[in-house]
Amino acid sequence: MTDELTVDFEPLGRRARVASGMTLLEAARQAGVGLNALCGGAGTCGTCRVRVVAGDVSPATEAERDAVAEGLRLACQTRVLGDVRVDVPPDSITAPQRAQIEGRERAVELDPAVRVFDVALAPPSLSDLRADGARLRDALREQHGVTVDCFDHAALCQLPVLLRENEWHTRLVVKSNEIVAAAPPGVSPLGLAVDIGTTKLAAYLVDLSSGETLGAAGAMNPQIAYGEDVMARIAHAMEGRDQARELEQAVVGGLNDLAGELCALVGRRSGEIVEAVLVGNTCMHHLALGLPVAQLGLAPYVAVLADGCDLKARDMGLTLSPGASVHFLPNIAGFVGADHVAMILATGIHESDEITLGLDIGTNTEIVLAAHGRLWSCSTASGPAFEGAHIHDGMRAAPGAIEKVRLDGEQVEYQAIDGAPPVGICGSGILDAVAELRRVGVLRPNGAMQSPSHPRVRGEGRGIEFLLVPAGERDAPRDIVISRKDVSEIQLAKAAIRAGVEVLLDEAGLEVSQVERVVVARAFGTYLDVDSALTIGMFPPLGRERFVQVGNAAGMGARLALLSRRCREQADKIARQVEYVELTTNPGFVGAYTKALMLP
Amino acid sequence: MTDELTVDFEPLGRRARVASGMTLLEAARQAGVGLNALCGGAGTCGTCRVRVVAGDVSPATEAERDAVAEGLRLACQTRVLGDVRVDVPPDSITAPQRAQIEGRERAVELDPAVRVFDVALAPPSLSDLRADGARLRDALREQHGVTVDCFDHAALCQLPVLLRENEWHTRLVVKSNEIVAAAPPGVSPLGLAVDIGTTKLAAYLVDLSSGETLGAAGAMNPQIAYGEDVMARIAHAMEGRDQARELEQAVVGGLNDLAGELCALVGRRSGEIVEAVLVGNTCMHHLALGLPVAQLGLAPYVAVLADGCDLKARDMGLTLSPGASVHFLPNIAGFVGADHVAMILATGIHESDEITLGLDIGTNTEIVLAAHGRLWSCSTASGPAFEGAHIHDGMRAAPGAIEKVRLDGEQVEYQAIDGAPPVGICGSGILDAVAELRRVGVLRPNGAMQSPSHPRVRGEGRGIEFLLVPAGERDAPRDIVISRKDVSEIQLAKAAIRAGVEVLLDEAGLEVSQVERVVVARAFGTYLDVDSALTIGMFPPLGRERFVQVGNAAGMGARLALLSRRCREQADKIARQVEYVELTTNPGFVGAYTKALMLP
Repeated sequence: MTDELTVDFEPLGRRARVASGMTLLEAARQAGVGLNALCGGAGTCGTCRVRVVAGDVSPATEAERDAVAEGLRLACQTRVLGDVRVDVPPDSITAPQRAQIEGRERAVELDPAVRVFDVALAPPSLSDLRADGARLRDALREQHGVTVDCFDHAALCQLPVLLRENEWHTRLVVKSNEIVAAAPPGVSPLGLAVDIGTTKLAAYLVDLSSGETLGAAGAMNPQIAYGEDVMARIAHAMEGRDQARELEQAVVGGLNDLAGELCALVGRRSGEIVEAVLVGNTCMHHLALGLPVAQLGLAPYVAVLADGCDLKARDMGLTLSPGASVHFLPNIAGFVGADHVAMILATGIHESDEITLGLDIGTNTEIVLAAHGRLWSCSTASGPAFEGAHIHDGMRAAPGAIEKVRLDGEQVEYQAIDGAPPVGICGSGILDAVAELRRVGVLRPNGAMQSPSHPRVRGEGRGIEFLLVPAGERDAPRDIVISRKDVSEIQLAKAAIRAGVEVLLDEAGLEVSQVERVVVARAFGTYLDVDSALTIGMFPPLGRERFVQVGNAAGMGARLALLSRRCREQADKIARQVEYVELTTNPGFVGAYTKALMLP
Repeated sequence: MTDELTVDFEPLGRRARVASGMTLLEAARQAGVGLNALCGGAGTCGTCRVRVVAGDVSPATEAERDAVAEGLRLACQTRVLGDVRVDVPPDSITAPQRAQIEGRERAVELDPAVRVFDVALAPPSLSDLRADGARLRDALREQHGVTVDCFDHAALCQLPVLLRENEWHTRLVVKSNEIVAAAPPGVSPLGLAVDIGTTKLAAYLVDLSSGETLGAAGAMNPQIAYGEDVMARIAHAMEGRDQARELEQAVVGGLNDLAGELCALVGRRSGEIVEAVLVGNTCMHHLALGLPVAQLGLAPYVAVLADGCDLKARDMGLTLSPGASVHFLPNIAGFVGADHVAMILATGIHESDEITLGLDIGTNTEIVLAAHGRLWSCSTASGPAFEGAHIHDGMRAAPGAIEKVRLDGEQVEYQAIDGAPPVGICGSGILDAVAELRRVGVLRPNGAMQSPSHPRVRGEGRGIEFLLVPAGERDAPRDIVISRKDVSEIQLAKAAIRAGVEVLLDEAGLEVSQVERVVVARAFGTYLDVDSALTIGMFPPLGRERFVQVGNAAGMGARLALLSRRCREQADKIARQVEYVELTTNPGFVGAYTKALMLP
């Protein structure tokens, strides 16, 4: 059969057009959905589990018995027989996609900052000469009891034609006391939530009438061309006004592209987006808004703006609806930004009755501690090792990156993303490798590699290394190794994180054992192996069951702030409530850091 | 002596640099100030009277006795001996300048919408990590008891550098709950008030700290290239989006140029203007704001926006201070605009206890009637005859235009603007001419020219005409005549105005004789001869003493709204209070118009 059927993958917002009889796994590949499939589609590994939400598919096979018991199917065994809608659980997606856009939904009452009202107007006549503006305001008051003061200027410019083309019926979008957009009757306004990461952008397109997420997409932050980390971006911006403007235009251009792509996927236009909520670290916040960043690179590292702010999208160069506004969640400090506030908001750490640690692991790792109604946070310079930088064979989490490592006697087991030929090792892989090397005794507590400890150890002195993948194995183009220096980089990174945790606990007067919950967020934080992190002492020694990995909580927080004014208020409250702890001047930090360098 | 002395002419804001001993009249010419000087500087006509406000000048001569008795001097007799400041009374300025920018000042309590506060901040330190924004807000609250919610985005982008360059001292400009600009300590923010006429722009630059008018300037509305009247502009805008945009950019460009020139005259930059108040007729309002105008050209002629509105200057392309805002006063109807509201505001007609008529005479003449606490207004199509259009030898009020005409027996007396060789006749001149021709019996009540009535009448039938200036007289380059058709044009124009007056009186149930005051505003209204207007029946037959000519009252109203929030509120109240009378559907209009065509 050659009929074209559609397969929609949610919550990713991707669609495939396939012939009847094709498997969901094939459809996923066509749609660019990176489903796990360790066995290559043989129906044996059970990693490609999906939920068929609607539509005709083939009956379950024997291989799917376990999956079916959980209400799921195996994508490699399920054939498409009609238009199908599929929900993809986070665990079934490979690292890159999962890391960028996945996050746990938190239920929230729909109460967005922009509200939508349908109005029907009497046309003007010689006995009713009211201006269009007054006519609309009157209708809004009479038909909905809503009083507005003014019109967004750009929105007003489009209104007269829209009104006359739609026989004086229109759907008005109101923010606060202002009419900010109008659409033909029945068209739902869109909202956009974006987490602007130093490396990646993660965006969500939301129907503001229903609260439904219509799609999610990730992209590289185009600023990456100007430097990998925040300090490199600040240095570039400090070269001059033009350079700062380049960075601003790069990220704004990236946001415009992403918004356009997301809208195109669901047959809409970014001109229909009436509000966006943005989060990001303080430097990303400043660069996106065109604010100076020089002072973020120098002690005492103060922000220009910490409060949450509203502005017109057009004022920052975003090409959304002409009258669209942008809300940027508040920052806490120069190195603890709106993304951290959004993470706290999304995970509910601020409302928790439990003593909770939250970690946003990145080049800078932000840590929050919630206890007894108070919140402390700090930022610690964990470096780019977990993003694959400064690692001998390091790479980002992309196809072919080794993401998991297990040592079983002399046997080296590993998994490369998307099952591609291994080409390097990403953050979670290097973390696993160091933990396994320590577990089996290849590494000493100080990180030194013991020479005769394992057949794969080769070289000596400073050149000693562990051969993870020999060239040719699984089509690897070259040897992939863990060097002594790689281990040092991981030690430095994990010590910074652990020391930050210790300082916060000390500030709060708490013992490690009192921590009841540890929330680990963000790309790397989602995908790392908690056991490995515990093995090397990156996380405090707590029971595995106290840890929860929540995905892109910052993006989820942005989405909540898009859907709910109450959440937006909570974000402001969180930012005000957090007690920022500056580590560079903290007397306990250096001691904690030195101690944390060791591998337990 | 060759010392350069400065002579400042107020309220025009013009400055001359002259050698000691030069006369004020010479200085005025150098500064481009069009002082009257009918005798050419002989000290005999007494028309160049000025008030020396400050500085050393030569002692008064015998010729100045009358002027000195009034506290004035004759510019042609007074020599500059030091830096001098001169106040130029409206009556001493020739028509073009006077018409554009002159207006009576009305005292008002200084209470502008933007307020200025000097703050001194503690610099950030490791023990005080507040963001610049919070630091400013806190200082504003602690040092002035003023609480703000937010920052204008564009203003905020400039703040961090300004703060650090001025050792954390700054002057903040606050509008409503927003910080909209900042300046180095001691620098006063500027305001701009503009009357956007169909033909001319009149702008005033104001020091918002002192309320002082620093300068005034007029310019042609660059939209003139797209048509002389409102209907031509609407037709051009309706040709397409690009054409509408051309009109918008033309007037905005003109405003930017005018703002730049005004600022340059006093050594400032238009980037220091933090607020502008604009007025104009409804079409000028819409075109300047980029609003569609198609519906203004078609019955029932409704505006898109009638309410007063605030927007960011940048959103309409004005290059003022980055965070500057624009306030446009409210419109009343499609053909009664914000300029009429501003005129009512400036003249206080709305607060008058007297039964008052107000006339804004132009291509469309707006008329307001105030009686017993009510306000009625209408717009009547008086046509462009008073602007010199559709008149055989008509021209605008420019040098060489005949502005006054008197017939003394067979003698024809006239005055050309600036004493230049006569080249044509402007509105006040043609009005005088028709009135004089009727007075001496050349014209019959129906406007027909009687052939043997005067030696200057020549031709016959439809070609009959009155020779006002023979070629060669006073270097006139050609004959200047009044044709039969010219008389008809004036009859049509004056009938429209008079009929509008009659309809309003009828609406209010008043007799003409009950009108206690007639306020005549706008360029032509200022310069016309009231006796002539009474002679031809353009104005109702009332005592000469009941008429007052107030100059550019619309511009004055804009200035008041710039200086006083209360005036701005009054403008809104006026617009709401006015009862608009649509003449095209008014049963009494045609009769009144037909009757008013006759010359009494």
